[in-house]
Amino acid sequence: MTPKLSEYLAFAHRLADASAEAIRPHFQTHLTATDKKDRGNQYSPVTAADQAAEAVMRRLINETYPDHGIFGEEQGVENLDAEYVWVLDPIDGTRSFLVGFPIFGTLIALNHQGTVEFGIMNQAISGERFVGGPEGAFLGERRIKTRSCADLADAILCYSGPWLYHKENERRVFDQVAKRVTLTMHVGDCYNYCMLALGMIDLVIETELNPWDIQALIPIIEQADGIVTTWNGGRVEDGGQVIACGDRRLYDQVMPILAQAADA
Amino acid sequence: MTPKLSEYLAFAHRLADASAEAIRPHFQTHLTATDKKDRGNQYSPVTAADQAAEAVMRRLINETYPDHGIFGEEQGVENLDAEYVWVLDPIDGTRSFLVGFPIFGTLIALNHQGTVEFGIMNQAISGERFVGGPEGAFLGERRIKTRSCADLADAILCYSGPWLYHKENERRVFDQVAKRVTLTMHVGDCYNYCMLALGMIDLVIETELNPWDIQALIPIIEQADGIVTTWNGGRVEDGGQVIACGDRRLYDQVMPILAQAADA
Repeated sequence: MTPKLSEYLAFAHRLADASAEAIRPHFQTHLTATDKKDRGNQYSPVTAADQAAEAVMRRLINETYPDHGIFGEEQGVENLDAEYVWVLDPIDGTRSFLVGFPIFGTLIALNHQGTVEFGIMNQAISGERFVGGPEGAFLGERRIKTRSCADLADAILCYSGPWLYHKENERRVFDQVAKRVTLTMHVGDCYNYCMLALGMIDLVIETELNPWDIQALIPIIEQADGIVTTWNGGRVEDGGQVIACGDRRLYDQVMPILAQAADA
Repeated sequence: MTPKLSEYLAFAHRLADASAEAIRPHFQTHLTATDKKDRGNQYSPVTAADQAAEAVMRRLINETYPDHGIFGEEQGVENLDAEYVWVLDPIDGTRSFLVGFPIFGTLIALNHQGTVEFGIMNQAISGERFVGGPEGAFLGERRIKTRSCADLADAILCYSGPWLYHKENERRVFDQVAKRVTLTMHVGDCYNYCMLALGMIDLVIETELNPWDIQALIPIIEQADGIVTTWNGGRVEDGGQVIACGDRRLYDQVMPILAQAADA
């Protein structure tokens, strides 16, 4: 890793610490959620914790690297033409946060001219911190790796919840996969991708992701020897239809099914 | 609380400590799950962690109170005619445990001639410990209370997952409720009932629960001013169709819907 990138990664850890500090006082308290109404007729909650966590990260970035850009879920874009752009989701999994489940995460990615240099997923309550970058994928100090799973019948599939699949063709192919696996979990957001990188589960299949939902997770998954692509095999930096898989053989079984509903 | 009950409650905390110690080394490791095949064609996983946690609790009970009975999920019944019977679920939420989500729990109830004297829900990873008994409902040292929610349209509903509803009539009434709430979460097991007692959510609606799935939770919910009954308004010590609710007004709205599929 270059000295500059090391410096940026150390700074990203500061962002993770600061966001966790902003989030923790709100966890399992009586928060009000506001429906952002940015997902058609789907519920899209945001809370004071999301706002506080994004604000503190933006302030630190602006103070420390005023020439860097910011692409955040809650508070918009700044200077997107910059060489380096921080892509932030203060609370990915606001539903889980709202009900008191510690399986949401803060996502921090550093995007350099279209490529994610490194990503962090920080769980503010447990302190679990997943990092993916040029030196590998880690949970805390421990190097992590996906597990092998050659057959869909043995797989564990996770996704964020049924609300994700409101398009009939996407739901149909998702259900085709889901009915063949051992176990499907209907919750999890970014935590699912990290459990895949950790070798706990085999498959995540989602749609309509935003760039800030996925960019930090790309190096965590790939450096753990996982695969993450769009449903047509392309790059996922822009979000959309996403498949993550721990084993190439499983990926090859699932892709022909997803292809039926893949965007061009 | 009588001196005897205080002694038993102190002992129950030892059981919670010991079970957590048995569970922790297995969490987020590459465990094999066995399908117990005790739920028809539904997946019903058990792991070495469930077995180890139940075994250590049974050993402590047998050593300390050899005249007490035990009713455990994984290792059967002993001396059910005893005056005091310990009702144990070493890992409620084995699916969550399996995929690495720290939202499962160890359930410990002391049943005295049909009535639950106290219950503990212990989260082995976070250390969260919910206790309900004659002195109230607590998370750690903090007294807890359900929140008010007068209208179904404002409610958050949780349940363990779609696999629970394989009977058509039960699924239909569940869906009728679910389509009217703000947010439904499809995971959670015992953690949901504790989040209800903590005032984070409003409603849990489930079916086919076993006595060990619910007994420890009854005093936690009721002492937090919540309501927990069967779908026909009866006692839930035996499990079956269960509704838990944080606000009587909400309960009165939901019960007529559930009544359409309530067991006699």
